[in-house]
Amino acid sequence: MRVLLVGAGGVGTAVTRIAARRPFFAAMVVADHDLGRAEAAVAALGGDARFRAERVDAGDEAAVTALLERHACDVLLNATDPRFVMPLFRAARTAGATYVDMAMSLSRPHPERPYEECGVKLGDTQFAQAADWEKAGALALVGMGVEPGLSDVFARHAADELFDEIEEIGVRDGANLTVDGYDFAPSFSIWTTIEECLNPPVVYEAGRGWFTTEPFSEPEVFDFPEGIGPVECVNVEHEEVLLVPRWVDARRVTFKYGLGEEFVRTLKTLHLLGLDRTEPVTVPSPAGPVRVSPRDVVAACLPDPATLGERMHGRTCAGTWVRGVKDGRPRELYLYHVVDNQWSMAEYGCQAVVWQTAVNPVIALELLATGAWSGAGVLGPEAFPARPFLDLLTAYGSPWGMREQ
Amino acid sequence: MRVLLVGAGGVGTAVTRIAARRPFFAAMVVADHDLGRAEAAVAALGGDARFRAERVDAGDEAAVTALLERHACDVLLNATDPRFVMPLFRAARTAGATYVDMAMSLSRPHPERPYEECGVKLGDTQFAQAADWEKAGALALVGMGVEPGLSDVFARHAADELFDEIEEIGVRDGANLTVDGYDFAPSFSIWTTIEECLNPPVVYEAGRGWFTTEPFSEPEVFDFPEGIGPVECVNVEHEEVLLVPRWVDARRVTFKYGLGEEFVRTLKTLHLLGLDRTEPVTVPSPAGPVRVSPRDVVAACLPDPATLGERMHGRTCAGTWVRGVKDGRPRELYLYHVVDNQWSMAEYGCQAVVWQTAVNPVIALELLATGAWSGAGVLGPEAFPARPFLDLLTAYGSPWGMREQ
Repeated sequence: MRVLLVGAGGVGTAVTRIAARRPFFAAMVVADHDLGRAEAAVAALGGDARFRAERVDAGDEAAVTALLERHACDVLLNATDPRFVMPLFRAARTAGATYVDMAMSLSRPHPERPYEECGVKLGDTQFAQAADWEKAGALALVGMGVEPGLSDVFARHAADELFDEIEEIGVRDGANLTVDGYDFAPSFSIWTTIEECLNPPVVYEAGRGWFTTEPFSEPEVFDFPEGIGPVECVNVEHEEVLLVPRWVDARRVTFKYGLGEEFVRTLKTLHLLGLDRTEPVTVPSPAGPVRVSPRDVVAACLPDPATLGERMHGRTCAGTWVRGVKDGRPRELYLYHVVDNQWSMAEYGCQAVVWQTAVNPVIALELLATGAWSGAGVLGPEAFPARPFLDLLTAYGSPWGMREQ
Repeated sequence: MRVLLVGAGGVGTAVTRIAARRPFFAAMVVADHDLGRAEAAVAALGGDARFRAERVDAGDEAAVTALLERHACDVLLNATDPRFVMPLFRAARTAGATYVDMAMSLSRPHPERPYEECGVKLGDTQFAQAADWEKAGALALVGMGVEPGLSDVFARHAADELFDEIEEIGVRDGANLTVDGYDFAPSFSIWTTIEECLNPPVVYEAGRGWFTTEPFSEPEVFDFPEGIGPVECVNVEHEEVLLVPRWVDARRVTFKYGLGEEFVRTLKTLHLLGLDRTEPVTVPSPAGPVRVSPRDVVAACLPDPATLGERMHGRTCAGTWVRGVKDGRPRELYLYHVVDNQWSMAEYGCQAVVWQTAVNPVIALELLATGAWSGAGVLGPEAFPARPFLDLLTAYGSPWGMREQ
């Protein structure tokens, strides 16, 4: 297998460090719009000759296609931000490469009833091309990070081995990460978090299909394992709700993010004041009036999460809660994966959230390389057998857990 | 009396409308850095020949002195923001004019122990000049708006007529103003509110003197009269705490602002995120990276309070709560003044908060013109007899009230 990894940010860099310990691929080309970032990622691997750095603009479909062809790559792994999903997805198709990403094509709210009906859903633009991929016998594996990704694998596993009938699948994400020296320092991009949290959350119900709600709807306190404890979770728009029902039979599918009360309050305040907006406002500056996006100003006031790994403490948990029936009796389980930041920093020099996202696509690449996973079309992680994935996760040194509720 | 009014913003414009109905002065020159604003204020008075508009930069001391002299003004009324207190105060002294303002020279927090000790206090820079004014037999009447201003007059009145001994004087300000069409729209400048609320609040105690606390300290719910009802109030840095103890005997003096829970939460969030800062941050813009002050961006995202009068409903209350002993028995009173926004809009075309601030310096000017108030030095409103002021307030059509607790 020859891989083109596009994006050498936090997640892309972690992908290289995890993959470098595995023998399943022959080459990994690390491409970024900033060649220096790509080179730094490769240089940190201590001379592994399978890796090389390239410069590429992820939005330039033709350039990406040419790069895939020049290096004879058979897989493109997209580790950029969601704005680049479509050009990279199309470039892989054109070059005849397998495509893997960790977030799906973007949604657009319903123009009249944004908090009741779906408009363009996450992944719709990709699924619209599914017939092309199938016809060509080519595979796009979409949403293959931790959430979506591992959470979808958990859903598949629950359906295959743990339940006869599933009432509800609820992905639940929570952490107890703190950052020394900061009262408020999100461990992920505030720009993206605002985007995720203020988009209308999507819910799936059998019979009704997909629909949306108000932001921060259905708050609940979920008790996370391994010392994280109870965190307030709210509905957030997320890929799993769109992916799981396509392959797994469940009456209801939700995604709730453990933002915690303080964070929810902060986001609500930003929204109330219009500080979440991306449309520019006019502001005085030493050089006269200038136009800036309030959301960019919020981001500029906070520390860059990529620089916080060393100051961060605590654990992050991704998991899938499932309620249903097994052998005629009600059952409730939480399948989960916890990463301790001190462990991931010591072991890989990567912050926990970033490392947890990156390990999953590397496992998926390994399963594709060995043939344990194969398929054609635009497929989510739950379209493949879960057991080999979960076993490999444990083999990578980061075991998953299961809690009977 | 010939008055130079500097500042034709909301409060300055309201001063002209209130003064125009009174015969006590011969001329009022309305000066602003924006001549158009000054002209608009004068034009709205329907041809009262006592008023004329001028352009002046309030920070240009020499220009203000020249303007005072050119129009032979014997009083300067400062209706600008507190940054211009010192140049206007000095210009009045140079020109031999009486000086009146509604906010005092700015404070600077204690460099090491900002939330325990005072640094430079509100008004310190002005009081440092008191001997000069006294020696010249000239008067600077400082803090003569509603709060400080009327609240100080209430304290004087309580000491003169209502108590034998005063335990505590607590200024309490609250409102039930709402703005149609906005979920969040402060009825006053958010820039100034942040400044006021995030400065260390100052408290006075006999024996201990002035000291500071953490922002938003000692929250209490105060029940405001005339239908406003209970509002959460917190300690805020304000002039009364510095003024009252200089002339009125009380064991404790505080100022608490009825910000309400939501507003306090909002300000705390802005502070947590660093969005209250005035030092510029670098932000991308269509024209490349620019430097902007986060607090300016917050202000730019909110509607201009000066434009909200027509959409505003409710009442604002300024008052002084006093606890002590009269005729050997404990007594507790709240002396207050309420303005209904619909009344002030209908009667003067002025928003309630702005009108309530403006009426008090006009009354003070009238008392100075008639000789009911006179003095030399740098004096607060509580240095003068309260009764004539309170009677004139009622005569202006806006009576004050008193509630026995």
